[in-house]
Amino acid sequence: MKTEYLKERKVIMRKLKINNNEVAFFAVGGLGEIGKNMYAVQFQDEIVIIDCGVLFPEDDLLGVDYVIQNYDYLVENKDKIKGIFITHGHEDHIGGLPFFLQKVKAPIYSGPFAISLIKGKLEEKHLLRETEFHEVDEFSEVHFKKLWVSFFRTTHSIPDTLGIAVHTPQGTIVQTGDFKFDLTPVGNLPAPNMQQMAKLGEEGVLLLTSDSTNAERPEFTKSERWVDIHVRKVFQRIKGRIIFASFASNVYRLREASDEAIRQGRKIAVVGRSMENAIVAGRELGYLKIPDDALIDPSELNSYPPEQVMIMCTGSQGEPMAALSRIANGTHRQIAIQPGDTVVFSSSPIPGNTTSVNNLINRLEEAGANVVHGYVNNIHTSGHGGQVDEEIMLRLMKPKYFAPVHGEYRMQKIHTELAQLTGVPKQNTFILENGDVLALTKDSARIADHIESMGNVYIDGRDVNDSVGDPEIRERRMLSEEGVVTAIAVVDLKDFQIVAGPDIVSRGFVYMHESQDLIRAANHEVFWAILNTFKNHKNIDRRILNRTIVSRLQKLLYDRTGRHPVIIPMVTIINGDSGKSKHHKKGHSKKQEDKSKAETPVTAE
Amino acid sequence: MKTEYLKERKVIMRKLKINNNEVAFFAVGGLGEIGKNMYAVQFQDEIVIIDCGVLFPEDDLLGVDYVIQNYDYLVENKDKIKGIFITHGHEDHIGGLPFFLQKVKAPIYSGPFAISLIKGKLEEKHLLRETEFHEVDEFSEVHFKKLWVSFFRTTHSIPDTLGIAVHTPQGTIVQTGDFKFDLTPVGNLPAPNMQQMAKLGEEGVLLLTSDSTNAERPEFTKSERWVDIHVRKVFQRIKGRIIFASFASNVYRLREASDEAIRQGRKIAVVGRSMENAIVAGRELGYLKIPDDALIDPSELNSYPPEQVMIMCTGSQGEPMAALSRIANGTHRQIAIQPGDTVVFSSSPIPGNTTSVNNLINRLEEAGANVVHGYVNNIHTSGHGGQVDEEIMLRLMKPKYFAPVHGEYRMQKIHTELAQLTGVPKQNTFILENGDVLALTKDSARIADHIESMGNVYIDGRDVNDSVGDPEIRERRMLSEEGVVTAIAVVDLKDFQIVAGPDIVSRGFVYMHESQDLIRAANHEVFWAILNTFKNHKNIDRRILNRTIVSRLQKLLYDRTGRHPVIIPMVTIINGDSGKSKHHKKGHSKKQEDKSKAETPVTAE
Repeated sequence: MKTEYLKERKVIMRKLKINNNEVAFFAVGGLGEIGKNMYAVQFQDEIVIIDCGVLFPEDDLLGVDYVIQNYDYLVENKDKIKGIFITHGHEDHIGGLPFFLQKVKAPIYSGPFAISLIKGKLEEKHLLRETEFHEVDEFSEVHFKKLWVSFFRTTHSIPDTLGIAVHTPQGTIVQTGDFKFDLTPVGNLPAPNMQQMAKLGEEGVLLLTSDSTNAERPEFTKSERWVDIHVRKVFQRIKGRIIFASFASNVYRLREASDEAIRQGRKIAVVGRSMENAIVAGRELGYLKIPDDALIDPSELNSYPPEQVMIMCTGSQGEPMAALSRIANGTHRQIAIQPGDTVVFSSSPIPGNTTSVNNLINRLEEAGANVVHGYVNNIHTSGHGGQVDEEIMLRLMKPKYFAPVHGEYRMQKIHTELAQLTGVPKQNTFILENGDVLALTKDSARIADHIESMGNVYIDGRDVNDSVGDPEIRERRMLSEEGVVTAIAVVDLKDFQIVAGPDIVSRGFVYMHESQDLIRAANHEVFWAILNTFKNHKNIDRRILNRTIVSRLQKLLYDRTGRHPVIIPMVTIINGDSGKSKHHKKGHSKKQEDKSKAETPVTAE
Repeated sequence: MKTEYLKERKVIMRKLKINNNEVAFFAVGGLGEIGKNMYAVQFQDEIVIIDCGVLFPEDDLLGVDYVIQNYDYLVENKDKIKGIFITHGHEDHIGGLPFFLQKVKAPIYSGPFAISLIKGKLEEKHLLRETEFHEVDEFSEVHFKKLWVSFFRTTHSIPDTLGIAVHTPQGTIVQTGDFKFDLTPVGNLPAPNMQQMAKLGEEGVLLLTSDSTNAERPEFTKSERWVDIHVRKVFQRIKGRIIFASFASNVYRLREASDEAIRQGRKIAVVGRSMENAIVAGRELGYLKIPDDALIDPSELNSYPPEQVMIMCTGSQGEPMAALSRIANGTHRQIAIQPGDTVVFSSSPIPGNTTSVNNLINRLEEAGANVVHGYVNNIHTSGHGGQVDEEIMLRLMKPKYFAPVHGEYRMQKIHTELAQLTGVPKQNTFILENGDVLALTKDSARIADHIESMGNVYIDGRDVNDSVGDPEIRERRMLSEEGVVTAIAVVDLKDFQIVAGPDIVSRGFVYMHESQDLIRAANHEVFWAILNTFKNHKNIDRRILNRTIVSRLQKLLYDRTGRHPVIIPMVTIINGDSGKSKHHKKGHSKKQEDKSKAETPVTAE
């Protein structure tokens, strides 16, 4: 299967099927989904890439750390790539760079905050030295042969967010990046530059590709100023220690919390590496106003009364290894929940994290903390604009053609309707999928081609070479939906004897104590599978053995239960040619388990 | 009093106390209040006026039809006035023109919808022929010697609303007019031109003077598109006749109702002169899409089943003479409420009208109609932007200096805070009052002068010469709060006899049947006042007689009740020198009563 999959991917080595005078816009990620954004504008032999993110899998992608794009087309055409333009420093926009840059060398153009985050990532992969960086701001221009790129300042939940305009001989293609119109940002953080957007609109935008995340919300997204007011109110009610949890990259939120803590005379202890980095970067770039003497080391916390400290930490999404989870579990080295502590979640759970966040809150409350939730207490607002923000962008840009990006299909669809309500003719709007190639001239647009972009690449280690394919994921999903049945046996090749087992162990399939008949029957099938294999093949072929066990068990279990559990044959062979037990497992973490299963694709055939 | 008041107004005949290089912005109406907007920009010998509205008095200005500005300064300097620029056709922006144009001849610059409304007004006053009109749109420019004026398209609850930019040698002064950012207006009505606003901002706005009406609402004002959706929903539930009431000038609303009625196969009958005019104008200008055969005469209503007709009428504010009140009262010539009728109020009561609207609703329901209210059913939205709209304007204009207009003090104050949150330095914001003269250069602003603008002019007839002063209004307020006591007597001068009375009639003071003692005592006081006056003055002096009656009654009534009713002596003298009864009243309408009282100021001394 895996081989076939790779072969299929080779087919796409080709040129775009567009006319020579047409400019192409396409996405290899970010359409029909929230995550792994990666957009490209191509005119003749020049390609400009916008963003290169990862997708964080939801619970149904078991054991997968990230999903990245299938960007084979771009790799094949890497000589045309002029640069990778980064709108902002969130993982779903920069997280793919450490993988992509292993395949393609291209300069990176980005604002300062994203650059500092990207550099950290590339350093881990030893890619930093060989990568060329160009720091840009809203007034920069980058000129290539026939394409040139300009920027416009927007606001989002991370500083230095830029929209990108790619100027082509056929007209200007605008990619908004993630945005909301925060008209009153906190501190000295800058506001959206509406003049730049209106000017692009006035000069003429051929194609607008705009953030669709909150297209389902019929509202104007509230400003961080509004959160600021409510953070103050919440803080003023808190008598004991404050444990403030939010995304480290949301420097706005860190600003609001630190300003108010300092006003209250609290010292600030920072916990968690990404939070430490964010505080350092935020202070360096002038976004945070925390004087040296307001910062203390977590080890000093006990020297201050509870009402004089605030702990800022990561882990607001319930990430098990982040500081807040460890604090909740009592496994943090320096910090334990005390009675009177208040944990402030200045965040809301990302879909898919709801359960882990709820569990975290339960554990915090069990440990004696008060918990203040984000949306309920008005101490969170989205980084993405709602329908009103999206309409403002449309009215400012007045695009001739429109393609909603950064969203699932239903969000793209509503966003397209908003475009029509703001004057874009229906036939000029396009709900694209990843891989669709929109070919444009100054007075035409059509979906002219489709490059292979499906077959997502799943990363469950830390390197692009750990990638697994769609079939594996399909199997893992089945695992989670139908359960798993493991058949264990030890066969001694010396005297062709089953010296242990067969035993049947199941998880998530049937309750074993109530299914003794079924288990006995399964045992029987495995026994006969082993004996038959031995009978037919003197020198045992493990592949045939496994396949036989699987097919016999599959038939039995489906006949009796109507279900298709994942079947894992674990036959250990002793005194054979290899002389080694192949399936003996040492690790016990979930991830390692999942990986070992992935290495034994059984049902995928 | 009245003479003194007029004398006081003569004092202000003077020049502005500003430097020759400074440009002045001031209001004679519209600041600290909602209504009678009238703003002016003056540079040296050129004055540009923006709007000329009236204020509709609330209930505490009894018997007053309109309040207009004290614009003596402008009248005195009428030779400098280059033009009157009208932002839109609402009464609080154009209603003062028939009065002002009697004093000052100046050309009017305005969009087409307002011009048609103004022409109607001036025709009534026979001012139409002598007035010069210039129809402008968002792309017009009007050049004078050193000032020139440009426009930008906004949206409001009436079509053809324009913001105005006055370009001066020191910089550009922007007056937004009334606005909201309706990004998705209904029908083919145009959206705000954000490019024009951003361009003004990019080129540099010296002073922004912006609509503050909804500065207390922390929201983005909903689009008419949203109302449209809910009008449809409401209409779809209605089985019988629909009686649709809204402001005639809100052509957006008329569009929504007529489109949906036509979709439902209903014929439309239009009732009320201003509604008829609005339908004609709206169809002419292409804002309404009502085919000829969808319109029927109200007399034809009974030829159609109830589910096939809609009546569009005026009177949504409970105006007693408007169609809807007459329908509710059963006094309308052609239309009476039938069981099954549904009256849809696509409006909300203007503050001050709440009581009369509630009364109207009660009467409609008593007559058997269902009533659908505006805000509750989402079939009304404000024409003025909330805080978000105001912030968008501020961000687009990026003004150096800011002065909130069109609002009461608390709205101006909040609007000033919004300006500061969007980057205008606090010392660059000015909460002006009517008459304050803000003097600006390209890098300075100060309140340099104050012209007399107080002493509002109250119009209770239909002409500027019917104006009454502040003291009269004070008296009328007392009348409403403390009641009125009228002393009536007839004195025959031939034989110095009281031939009838004295009788005491009171309204709103005490319940007479329970106060016989007090009435008797009052009678006694009047009797003695008349006798004493006769005794001391052979040829009776009416002024002295009245004053004596008032002072005796005042003392008595205050001693006994602690209250200060308005006292009206109505002594009719027969066979005297004048030989005529002076106080005999014929009219019985409230208005006429109020007028006659106003001509007899008694307590004001």
